[in-house]
Amino acid sequence: MSKLVIVGTVAFDAIETPFGKTDKILGGAATYIGLSASQFNTDSAIVSVVGGDFPEADIAMLQNKGINMEGLEIIKDGKTFFWSGKYHNDMNSRDTLITELNVLENFDPKVPAEYRNAEVVMLGNLHPMVQMGVINQMKNPKMVVLDTMNFWMDVALEDLKKVISKVDVITINDEEARQLSGEYSLVNAAKKIMTMGPAYVVIKKGEHGALLFHENKMFFAPALPLAEVFDPTGAGDTFAGGFTGYLAKTGTYSFENMKRAIIYGSCLASFCVEKFGTERMQHLKKEEVNKRLHEFKSLTQYDIELT
Amino acid sequence: MSKLVIVGTVAFDAIETPFGKTDKILGGAATYIGLSASQFNTDSAIVSVVGGDFPEADIAMLQNKGINMEGLEIIKDGKTFFWSGKYHNDMNSRDTLITELNVLENFDPKVPAEYRNAEVVMLGNLHPMVQMGVINQMKNPKMVVLDTMNFWMDVALEDLKKVISKVDVITINDEEARQLSGEYSLVNAAKKIMTMGPAYVVIKKGEHGALLFHENKMFFAPALPLAEVFDPTGAGDTFAGGFTGYLAKTGTYSFENMKRAIIYGSCLASFCVEKFGTERMQHLKKEEVNKRLHEFKSLTQYDIELT
Repeated sequence: MSKLVIVGTVAFDAIETPFGKTDKILGGAATYIGLSASQFNTDSAIVSVVGGDFPEADIAMLQNKGINMEGLEIIKDGKTFFWSGKYHNDMNSRDTLITELNVLENFDPKVPAEYRNAEVVMLGNLHPMVQMGVINQMKNPKMVVLDTMNFWMDVALEDLKKVISKVDVITINDEEARQLSGEYSLVNAAKKIMTMGPAYVVIKKGEHGALLFHENKMFFAPALPLAEVFDPTGAGDTFAGGFTGYLAKTGTYSFENMKRAIIYGSCLASFCVEKFGTERMQHLKKEEVNKRLHEFKSLTQYDIELT
Repeated sequence: MSKLVIVGTVAFDAIETPFGKTDKILGGAATYIGLSASQFNTDSAIVSVVGGDFPEADIAMLQNKGINMEGLEIIKDGKTFFWSGKYHNDMNSRDTLITELNVLENFDPKVPAEYRNAEVVMLGNLHPMVQMGVINQMKNPKMVVLDTMNFWMDVALEDLKKVISKVDVITINDEEARQLSGEYSLVNAAKKIMTMGPAYVVIKKGEHGALLFHENKMFFAPALPLAEVFDPTGAGDTFAGGFTGYLAKTGTYSFENMKRAIIYGSCLASFCVEKFGTERMQHLKKEEVNKRLHEFKSLTQYDIELT
C-alpha cells in the first residue's frame, strides 16, 4: 500500500436540483476525493484550508474514515469556501449562483512532513500555482494526478501548462479537453495533451463514461445508467478519489491496473449522485461497492472469440 | 444460419459535412443495413422500392454482396426517394435540406415468397403501417427488429404503437426513447417501452455508444472513439445491419448472443462514418473487421477479481 496526498477544497455547498435544495452542507473536491479513496483503507492525507466556521464534527468524520487531517489549515477568523449552484432539468448542466473564495484566496498548502514521500498525489481542482506548490513539496511521487477545469484555461493558461508538464495523469471533461488541445476529436485531443506532459489522459464524459488514453492505448469505462440521478455534485471528484485510492492501495501503475482504477472510479461515482452532497459516500458500505462492481461487469463484459 | 429480411429505403442522398459535400449518391436505410449484414454472408433480402432513375449498377453491387434483390420494386416512371442533409460542425446534429418521397409515397412492400419464413426481420425506419405490412407477410419470425424515429411519434403515434406491440426489439436513439416513454432516465424509459411490447430495447447514443435492455438486464457497448468522423450518415442503419446480420448468422437469440450482436453492430458502424456515404461499407474487408474487434476488446475489457 502507498500513501496518498489529496489537495483540494474543503467547502460548504448549497445545491439546488429538480429534486430539492439544501442549505449549506459539507462539500469540496478534497472532501469527495477523500471519502471515495477511503473505501480502499488507504493511508491518505487531505491538504486544504477552512475557516473558523467549519464544524469540528466534519473534521472528525473525515478522520474516522482514516484520513489524516493535519494538513487542513484552520484560519480561525476566516470563512470557509462557499459554492452554490443550481442544476438544470437534464442534470448535465448547472449555473453557479455564488462563489465565495474566503480563506481559499490566500491558500498556501502545506503537505505534512510524513506524507511528502507519498507515491500518489491527487491534485483537486484549484489554482494551478497552488497545485504546483504541492508538487514542489513532494519527494519523488510515482503518480501525480491533476484535475482542473476550463476556468483556469481562461484565466491562467500559462500557469496551468506549467503544472500539466509536471504531472503523470490529467483528468478533464470532454469540452475542456477540446479547449485545451484545440482538437474536436477526443482521440486527437488526448494525443495532443499527452505531448504537453502527462503520460495518461483521462477524459470524463459524465453520464457518458470516461476514457483513458496512454501511448497508443485507449480504454473506456461507462457510467452506470441509473434510474435516478439525485445530485451530480462531486461525481467527478468521487471518480478521481476512486481512481487514485485504488492506485495507492495497489501501488501498481501498469496500464492494466490503471484500467481497474478507472472502473473503480466509475463505480464509486455512481453512488455519489444517488443522494445530496456527501451523504451517500459517508455511509457507503464495502458490500454495496462489491455488488455494484458485479453490475459493472455484467454491463460491460462480453465473450467474443477473436481470430 | 437463418434468413434475414431487410425492409427500408433504397435512396439517393446528397450530404454536406465540414469535410466536403457530395452530389446524389447511393443511400437509404436498407442499403446500409444490407451492406453491413453482408459481412456475415447471411442469406438476406432487401424489400424496397426505387424509380426508373436508379442505377442498375447499384442493384448489381448489392446482389454481388449476396443480397437477394427480388423484393426491390422498380417503378419505371417514378423517381427514387431523395434526401439531402447538412451536418453541423460537431457532427452530432444535422439539418434536413430536402426530402422528396417520390416512389416511397405509395410503397407497398412485398416480401419474396422464399423469404417469408425468415427468422430475422429488420424493419428500417419507414411509416409504421408499411412496417406492419411486412410483419403481416412473415411466417413465425423469431426476431423482429424495429427501427423508427421521432417523426413517426409526432405524426403517427397510434400506428407506431401498434407496430411496437408486435416486435421483439426496438432500436431508437436516446431522445426518441425519452419522447416515446415520457421518462428522462434511459433506464426508466427502457422499462416503460418494454411494457409496450418489445422484450429488448436498444437505445442508440451515437458517439456515446448503445445500451441493450432486457428484463432486468442491461448491457452497454461504446462507440469506438475515432480520430476523424467523416460522415455520420447511415451509422445507425449500419449498426442495425451488424446487429441483425450477426443474429441471422448465428440463429441464436440468447441475451449473451444479443450482447455479441450489439458489439458487432458498434464495430461495423465505426467503419461507416470514415468515408462519405456507403463507400467504406462497400469495400470493407473481413480482416479489417477482425482487427477492429480486437480494438473493441482492448477498449472495453478489464480484469477485476470480484468477491
